[in-house]
Amino acid sequence: MAVPPSTYPHRLLPLFLGLFQGALLLFFALFVTYDEPLAQAEDTNLVANQIYSTFPFFQDIQVMLVVGLGLLLTFLPRYGFSALTHNFLLLNFSMQWALVLQGLLHHFHHGQIHLDLHKLLISEFAAVTVLISVGAILGRASPCQLLVMATCEIPTYLASEWVIVTCLGVLDVGSTITIHVFSCYFGLGVSKALFRATQQPLHPKETPTTSSDLMSLVGTLILWVFWPSFVAVLCQPGDAQHRAILNTLLAMSASAITTVVASSLLERDSKLSPSHLQNGSLAGGVAIGVVADMAMPPVAALALGSLSAVVCVLGFRFLTPLLRRKLTLLDQCGIHNLHGLPGILGAAASVVAILVASKDTSGSQPSQLSPAGDNASEVVEGQWGGRGVGGQALCQAAGLAVAVGASLLAGLLTGAALRLPCLARPPERLCFDDSLYFMIQDQAESPGPDSSAEEGALALKEQV
Amino acid sequence: MAVPPSTYPHRLLPLFLGLFQGALLLFFALFVTYDEPLAQAEDTNLVANQIYSTFPFFQDIQVMLVVGLGLLLTFLPRYGFSALTHNFLLLNFSMQWALVLQGLLHHFHHGQIHLDLHKLLISEFAAVTVLISVGAILGRASPCQLLVMATCEIPTYLASEWVIVTCLGVLDVGSTITIHVFSCYFGLGVSKALFRATQQPLHPKETPTTSSDLMSLVGTLILWVFWPSFVAVLCQPGDAQHRAILNTLLAMSASAITTVVASSLLERDSKLSPSHLQNGSLAGGVAIGVVADMAMPPVAALALGSLSAVVCVLGFRFLTPLLRRKLTLLDQCGIHNLHGLPGILGAAASVVAILVASKDTSGSQPSQLSPAGDNASEVVEGQWGGRGVGGQALCQAAGLAVAVGASLLAGLLTGAALRLPCLARPPERLCFDDSLYFMIQDQAESPGPDSSAEEGALALKEQV
Amino acid sequence: MAVPPSTYPHRLLPLFLGLFQGALLLFFALFVTYDEPLAQAEDTNLVANQIYSTFPFFQDIQVMLVVGLGLLLTFLPRYGFSALTHNFLLLNFSMQWALVLQGLLHHFHHGQIHLDLHKLLISEFAAVTVLISVGAILGRASPCQLLVMATCEIPTYLASEWVIVTCLGVLDVGSTITIHVFSCYFGLGVSKALFRATQQPLHPKETPTTSSDLMSLVGTLILWVFWPSFVAVLCQPGDAQHRAILNTLLAMSASAITTVVASSLLERDSKLSPSHLQNGSLAGGVAIGVVADMAMPPVAALALGSLSAVVCVLGFRFLTPLLRRKLTLLDQCGIHNLHGLPGILGAAASVVAILVASKDTSGSQPSQLSPAGDNASEVVEGQWGGRGVGGQALCQAAGLAVAVGASLLAGLLTGAALRLPCLARPPERLCFDDSLYFMIQDQAESPGPDSSAEEGALALKEQV
Repeated sequence: MAVPPSTYPHRLLPLFLGLFQGALLLFFALFVTYDEPLAQAEDTNLVANQIYSTFPFFQDIQVMLVVGLGLLLTFLPRYGFSALTHNFLLLNFSMQWALVLQGLLHHFHHGQIHLDLHKLLISEFAAVTVLISVGAILGRASPCQLLVMATCEIPTYLASEWVIVTCLGVLDVGSTITIHVFSCYFGLGVSKALFRATQQPLHPKETPTTSSDLMSLVGTLILWVFWPSFVAVLCQPGDAQHRAILNTLLAMSASAITTVVASSLLERDSKLSPSHLQNGSLAGGVAIGVVADMAMPPVAALALGSLSAVVCVLGFRFLTPLLRRKLTLLDQCGIHNLHGLPGILGAAASVVAILVASKDTSGSQPSQLSPAGDNASEVVEGQWGGRGVGGQALCQAAGLAVAVGASLLAGLLTGAALRLPCLARPPERLCFDDSLYFMIQDQAESPGPDSSAEEGALALKEQV
Repeated sequence: MAVPPSTYPHRLLPLFLGLFQGALLLFFALFVTYDEPLAQAEDTNLVANQIYSTFPFFQDIQVMLVVGLGLLLTFLPRYGFSALTHNFLLLNFSMQWALVLQGLLHHFHHGQIHLDLHKLLISEFAAVTVLISVGAILGRASPCQLLVMATCEIPTYLASEWVIVTCLGVLDVGSTITIHVFSCYFGLGVSKALFRATQQPLHPKETPTTSSDLMSLVGTLILWVFWPSFVAVLCQPGDAQHRAILNTLLAMSASAITTVVASSLLERDSKLSPSHLQNGSLAGGVAIGVVADMAMPPVAALALGSLSAVVCVLGFRFLTPLLRRKLTLLDQCGIHNLHGLPGILGAAASVVAILVASKDTSGSQPSQLSPAGDNASEVVEGQWGGRGVGGQALCQAAGLAVAVGASLLAGLLTGAALRLPCLARPPERLCFDDSLYFMIQDQAESPGPDSSAEEGALALKEQV
Repeated sequence: MAVPPSTYPHRLLPLFLGLFQGALLLFFALFVTYDEPLAQAEDTNLVANQIYSTFPFFQDIQVMLVVGLGLLLTFLPRYGFSALTHNFLLLNFSMQWALVLQGLLHHFHHGQIHLDLHKLLISEFAAVTVLISVGAILGRASPCQLLVMATCEIPTYLASEWVIVTCLGVLDVGSTITIHVFSCYFGLGVSKALFRATQQPLHPKETPTTSSDLMSLVGTLILWVFWPSFVAVLCQPGDAQHRAILNTLLAMSASAITTVVASSLLERDSKLSPSHLQNGSLAGGVAIGVVADMAMPPVAALALGSLSAVVCVLGFRFLTPLLRRKLTLLDQCGIHNLHGLPGILGAAASVVAILVASKDTSGSQPSQLSPAGDNASEVVEGQWGGRGVGGQALCQAAGLAVAVGASLLAGLLTGAALRLPCLARPPERLCFDDSLYFMIQDQAESPGPDSSAEEGALALKEQV
């Protein structure tokens, strides 16, 4: 399997990363310190308790992003190494880049930057956007292109998140609007601009094998298990966090079962599709993120989980092929079905939840169905800064619009930049192939032994 | 590989699950709410601390059930997808079904049901029974049959658990009698009634390959690591929980080593058998569950771990083939060796521990060997409700008898119900085959390339 | 594939392990108890909090050692079963052996041994040394040889750790000098003495396949995620632990990116080498262990992480082949590059950190770059027992020398002992082969289907 002769574009990767690491060291040397150690024993206890309450959530999220998401992306049989490694590399690069950008913003306002676990966690959240967006172009983009994409996406995300959360005051505890919806449309924008109008034919290496699909399913299960930590980590400790965990568990459980129902109704012979399972089971977790800590009855979490799984499976079955045919829009992992549609559903649910919660409060007798209504909406009312129920509902919708609009625009521009020849987009026949990026021995086994058996038989035939 | 022409039985799966999800939504809408949010700051701290103390255990158990147990079941080389997915589906279905049943019982006594993490945890424990029982018939039953089995098993479990724990006051902190023993004999009963007297020949797809055995071993290791969380999660916080964790760690460590000893003594050329390793290493965790928090010296945990590993390996070597030959009893995963025998051993150990602990206390000088005896047995004495040492020991035995008797009976009845033709038991030649339930590309690779090489060679031979 | 006729050496394995388990039971029966249960409610809360603060770290470390390290070692395509199982067996054996030895030492001074989670954790740390050392001889040694090696290594480690930490007062919170450096040179010593001057040719089964390399990479990622728990578990709760976690996260993040830079600069066509990724990404975690809780600015953690990744990759590219060629020193997993070189780097960094921290304090105005300098070095000063800055720096160097010297010497002696014929070193042609130790069905698939296709074709050719 011949490798393109020019090695120049590959050289760009270490150059780019090396320069970035140098700049990072300089930035840290100049601006970043730790908090001064605390003298009092009570303060030490406080710090210790903060670690015990945050660190397990942080580790869960690391497992999700590094192991779970990495494995989920290994469904391309000859591209497992690249999927795992590029996911890992992009997580670290984007996290560091987000640290720098957030640090600079902070520095201009408050001087010296005091690093702590919370700041790392926020940067890790920023990095998630890149890991999701990559799904749209997985296998057809070079590592250099992915790094440039990350470089453009992180500042856009920070700006959009600032507008949505700080300016508009959108309630979004699980970062569904700011991360899932944003990164989905950013990725689709990049894909559209990068591949333009050319119809991409089905690549022979694009079809999963049983064993690659199985690895990917294991990734899904890891994500499914730890998802509640992702949604609840930034919640207020206590009651709100408890409710966020429960709502996420219910939504994901409903998603898992509804995915089986929807997939077997849609497929031939009532069989299940691996890609439906891999994605639909997680759709509830995406949708619930906006409303997880709001005052709503448990049945709402179940219903939202079921509905988002249906939407996700329908998207895979009908929308993705349609977009590919009509708009020549490539979405390799179906991020629109897992992150886009359920995210929009979650945003819509938040509008409903806010309107319903307020109606409960306005009546003299809060409905038995949402006993949390009375108290919680008071608390929420405080958060809304006196803008009223209708205002908050409008803000949720506006936040969604900002996330979709800003990400699509920025994604299209970024995708156009990725067409620069120096970024070394791999030629079509070398797409989805680890051997372009890794020193690996034989790739023959991955797509199933048929090929090799065939090759053996063919070779023999010639001899015979 | 032809698929049976009638797709009717497959259609039953989405119908059944869809109706269930609808009923679940209705039930939640009518009866289930969250606790009202707490106003006081101290209460908030209390809730937060409860989450921090329970949630990590809960996540550990989720990893065990979804990832660890799922992978453990993938030892059938062409059935990995089904094993992982059916395990995942059954966990969610059974957990929701247990929530409904427990909710109904509660509702008739106390009205509105307040959902919290503890209730979800209890329902998850109920679901474990189904996941274990499935092991007896893995690969030979359709998903519809498995769902009907779960539908029957959960209420039986709840009734049996109520008799054993609430009525008889059996001490069983790790749910060994109520879950492991119960689900083992339930599964064996189902297997016996479902396959009747017909001798099942060894299926060609039943033999593990190296890579499927390796995946399964990874599952074992994940279960092994997190097992202490399963045993200790329902313990009293503090000393009892500490002791439960330590006893479980000791028992499982002894199991791991004793399994190697026993397996290499029994097998040809002193080689180790993968199935012994996959199961024996966990036997200590099953057995220790009954006594993990009792007053006993650490050496007892080590001895119990070793003994249960020996029993488990001997069961695989001699008992399972015997049952298959003499009683035509099929036990695909050997659940009798991993859950049945060590569970009975644990129950016997609890009788001994109770008798010995009381003797220590009755003497004026408590033995140095069990310094916990004095104090702990007082505490325990309080729990026994004044029924005395002999009475408690009798109750442990009675609890075991209830678990075995009730589960066997219910299992036999359930197995008979599973013979209904509309539940679509797969034909013999399509057992152990993912392609019956999943849209997957090629299955040829899983059983090792020999077959495909053979097929290739055969195809060529015909051409030649 | 024929198995050697004599089964005697294999019989040694169950004999040895069985005797050890018996001795362990005796030892526990005679000397080991649990703490007496505590009567006061406050004490119970204290124990509960200790569990909640230690147990999650403990579980993280168990995942690292059992699953992460196990998978990392599966890069040998036909040796995955042995790698996982021997790693698991050695962890349990070494942990129990360390418990016994530490218990005996304690017993002679204080009588009865009270077992708790902390003592188990310390024993687990001791076991890590064995798991690392094995890497040097992986695939070429029998399980009996590995157990004898563990038997010799644990007491040496305990003695060396006592000298380094208790006598010399070396600061080494993440056990880098005492564990990583020690076990690396112990393993190299064993390898040298065991294989002597004979040049080991490249074995045909030694070459990883894509799928075995992928499994190994998953192991790396699991280790990478949980590494901060390993470094921080023995820290003082509060500020120091917080800083240790942050420093480890920064160092490992820098390692991940720098590994990609270094590997793609060194390899042909700027491709990445799997072994570089598998090891270099973790090098920062090894190096940071010595200084993780010291007073130093965050940039130092980043720089140390980057530097150690460079050193690790350079070691794989140049040093390992050189050692193999010139010194006929075999280092199968490259432990010298992952544990030796970064460990030495970390020790050197600790000398610098101590000298710099003291300079900051001596000045009237502590540098803005290390605001922790003033306060922390006072605390540290207290720990140094008045031996002064220069003395402490010397002690760090002396500790490193003790670790390297003692381990090399003990390793060479142990390696010589492993040449005893009764320990059954596998013959060259059966190295790296699971089928020598496990009852497994077919091994043909692992090294890629070419072989089987070839075999099929060859078989057919003969027929034709």
